[in-house]
Amino acid sequence: MLEAFKEAQIAASLDEVPIGAVIVKDGVIIARGHNLRESKQSPLLHAEIIAIEEAARVLGSWRLIDCTLYVTLEPCAMCAGAIVNARIPLLVYGAKDPKGGAVDSNVKLFEIPNLNHRPEVISGVLSSECSQILSSFFKNKRN
Amino acid sequence: MLEAFKEAQIAASLDEVPIGAVIVKDGVIIARGHNLRESKQSPLLHAEIIAIEEAARVLGSWRLIDCTLYVTLEPCAMCAGAIVNARIPLLVYGAKDPKGGAVDSNVKLFEIPNLNHRPEVISGVLSSECSQILSSFFKNKRN
Repeated sequence: MLEAFKEAQIAASLDEVPIGAVIVKDGVIIARGHNLRESKQSPLLHAEIIAIEEAARVLGSWRLIDCTLYVTLEPCAMCAGAIVNARIPLLVYGAKDPKGGAVDSNVKLFEIPNLNHRPEVISGVLSSECSQILSSFFKNKRN
Repeated sequence: MLEAFKEAQIAASLDEVPIGAVIVKDGVIIARGHNLRESKQSPLLHAEIIAIEEAARVLGSWRLIDCTLYVTLEPCAMCAGAIVNARIPLLVYGAKDPKGGAVDSNVKLFEIPNLNHRPEVISGVLSSECSQILSSFFKNKRN
């Protein structure tokens, strides 16, 4: 999660909402991502999406078997859906997102019926740091 | 929707699950997409995602204001979340997806609380053709 947090710091340095992600397989980081929505003017380029795309490219497969996705903030619906579609077995996230979170907060997407894959979830890892970097970012924006 | 259906036919010709999408702004198709998950081995490359990425590139903005997304099948959670994130005001889809549909069927994602955008939805357009091309594809796969 420290590595995902470093990615969030890179996003902050680019004036992007500071969210970062890494994907680990067999103890090795195979993909990294940080939010690039504004820089690239793409609604899709959340940290998780960038990392998932890179991991699929590295593995040469759309099935990210035996991979763990670490992300600093609870994923939104798009990213939670992408985690299901990529068959990622384990999601570890930092801070909860009461407004947009689609895993535990606003909707529990992994608990809906008929899913063809249900990731395991660990939450609250490095939560205060992951939350703090977001609060500082938005506080500076308001100043 | 006929143009989205043509995209689905292209997907079928590539041995991809036949789903197609187009995005229209001011009466003009600005982006097209068909499912490329297997060809590109990417879990993200659903028809809608490809079309949204292209539309954002064409418009130079992550906000797809005044755009309508036409897609042959009810979007999954990832794509429904992407539609929200892209602020697409109107979604028109063909066939319902009882298993993976995240708009009306398996989960009603646009009805969850706290969304920062709620697209309008028209469903059932060219529904039997959009459904039939999928049934034929899977029937051939089983033979």
